[in-house]
Amino acid sequence: MKLALVGIGKIALDQHVPALAASPDWELAATVSRNGRVDGVEHWTDLAAMLDARPDIRVVSLCLPPVPRFDAAMQVLEAGRFVMLEKPPGTTLGECHDLQDTAERLGLSIFATWHSREAAMVAPAKAWLADKIIKRGHITWREDVRKWHPGQDWVFEPGGMGVFDPGINALSILTEILPMAVRLTGAELEYPANRQTPIAARLQFSQAISADFDWRQEGPQTWSIEIETDQGTLALHDGGARLEIDGTAATLADTALAGEYPRLYRRMADLVRAGRSDMDLRPMTLVADAFLLGARQITHPFHF
Amino acid sequence: MKLALVGIGKIALDQHVPALAASPDWELAATVSRNGRVDGVEHWTDLAAMLDARPDIRVVSLCLPPVPRFDAAMQVLEAGRFVMLEKPPGTTLGECHDLQDTAERLGLSIFATWHSREAAMVAPAKAWLADKIIKRGHITWREDVRKWHPGQDWVFEPGGMGVFDPGINALSILTEILPMAVRLTGAELEYPANRQTPIAARLQFSQAISADFDWRQEGPQTWSIEIETDQGTLALHDGGARLEIDGTAATLADTALAGEYPRLYRRMADLVRAGRSDMDLRPMTLVADAFLLGARQITHPFHF
Repeated sequence: MKLALVGIGKIALDQHVPALAASPDWELAATVSRNGRVDGVEHWTDLAAMLDARPDIRVVSLCLPPVPRFDAAMQVLEAGRFVMLEKPPGTTLGECHDLQDTAERLGLSIFATWHSREAAMVAPAKAWLADKIIKRGHITWREDVRKWHPGQDWVFEPGGMGVFDPGINALSILTEILPMAVRLTGAELEYPANRQTPIAARLQFSQAISADFDWRQEGPQTWSIEIETDQGTLALHDGGARLEIDGTAATLADTALAGEYPRLYRRMADLVRAGRSDMDLRPMTLVADAFLLGARQITHPFHF
Repeated sequence: MKLALVGIGKIALDQHVPALAASPDWELAATVSRNGRVDGVEHWTDLAAMLDARPDIRVVSLCLPPVPRFDAAMQVLEAGRFVMLEKPPGTTLGECHDLQDTAERLGLSIFATWHSREAAMVAPAKAWLADKIIKRGHITWREDVRKWHPGQDWVFEPGGMGVFDPGINALSILTEILPMAVRLTGAELEYPANRQTPIAARLQFSQAISADFDWRQEGPQTWSIEIETDQGTLALHDGGARLEIDGTAATLADTALAGEYPRLYRRMADLVRAGRSDMDLRPMTLVADAFLLGARQITHPFHF
């Protein structure tokens, strides 16, 4: 199936393009981007022009930042094409609901991807937790914004979500692996004095789960989730790539399809073939609730 | 049907108690409150004790501030009683979803009330707009927090929502009367330097609709919604009590049941008899989106 990729930046080149190149399902038939290109692939700078000129491309994957993504997604749907969205699926819940309603009305598949859910050990973690009683849990998600978003001021603009841009990955894993619903009960958000979105957050959830998100972590980066249960303690490390049960590393039986993005594109192929959609807004709702309920603290100005 | 009212403060005494006294459907069989009481009505200070002692009371109406309301609502549902909630239905969307899921699981009616939707001219406004094309709209919701919430610090604590406590009333009317979905597209929120929730907000929505919420309005108070359409301009004033079409006052054909709270309690009676629930989260989602997407501005400290 032919696919167009919109927004050729770091994530597109590092993740989407290699995943598509290796996929038996997809052919990268066109790119749309103001600046970025992919060697040997037909290139457009205007999305509307591409949609007009290439009716044979039925699926469009949007790898744009959250703010411009909504208009592009609406344009794709209104042109009768299936759409795949990078996370988060919108800058607001309202955008997500509008996209979902539009896709449904037009009979098109929409896939709001959560790439971290496709990390190798997320599914085994979910399977292990399924019959356990959760006693408490803690998320540590600490990384260096200068390393992962160098000079990208949009992450600190309204709608950029700040530290929730990586943090929502942790929440997408948490909501996937827990055997019950989880609800935000409190939040402290640290805003740099010169910025509009938080650079750090401490969150409390139901089931005695807490989270520590921080974008100021230099040196080793930490993306871990620990869950204590009635039958032992589970730890996911490296964003879901490694799993330990009571300190012992778990290994994977099936490593046939490795990598988050290859799995996302396989799932998109399945959804398109089945004519179905997948738009799970639970991670996004937790973030909205953190902004709604969060106590704000002002901290040192941040400069890249 | 017997009903217990929990939280006997200003709104309970001004609105709920008179509405119940005049209702053919309801008997106010008990109150639960730390301080307030209603003459001649059995009084409890502990909700659990009342629920235990009075299995004949099948319906509980919660007139508590948002933060303590969730635990009380869960307690009521888990005791197998129907529940009616003052607005907003939770401090977070997660709370609302949990309550909704619990009510559904236990086969109980839950009613998240939006009292402003029951203002006299809201239904006529909705009927008039049904076949119109919306060109633009503006909400002006300006009141004096010192007058309506004297000394109530909880409105400025996390979860108290600040100026969205009255503003969500405007949003409940807007989402009710418009013939299409409306989405928040931008927000500026003004926070007093010494407070955790905004005292003013300027909002932008889809369909060229905007809103101006302000809690610092002394003198005359303004609760108006103006909608310009392809066939004239509608204006709702006084929080939905007055309707003008192109400047001419509209009058009401049926004034049989006057008042927001009498209508809410009639609707609750209908829901209980039919075994149905009503939990429309659209106003709450717009507020969460305003916090998520809003640009923050710091303004003068506020003291009651």
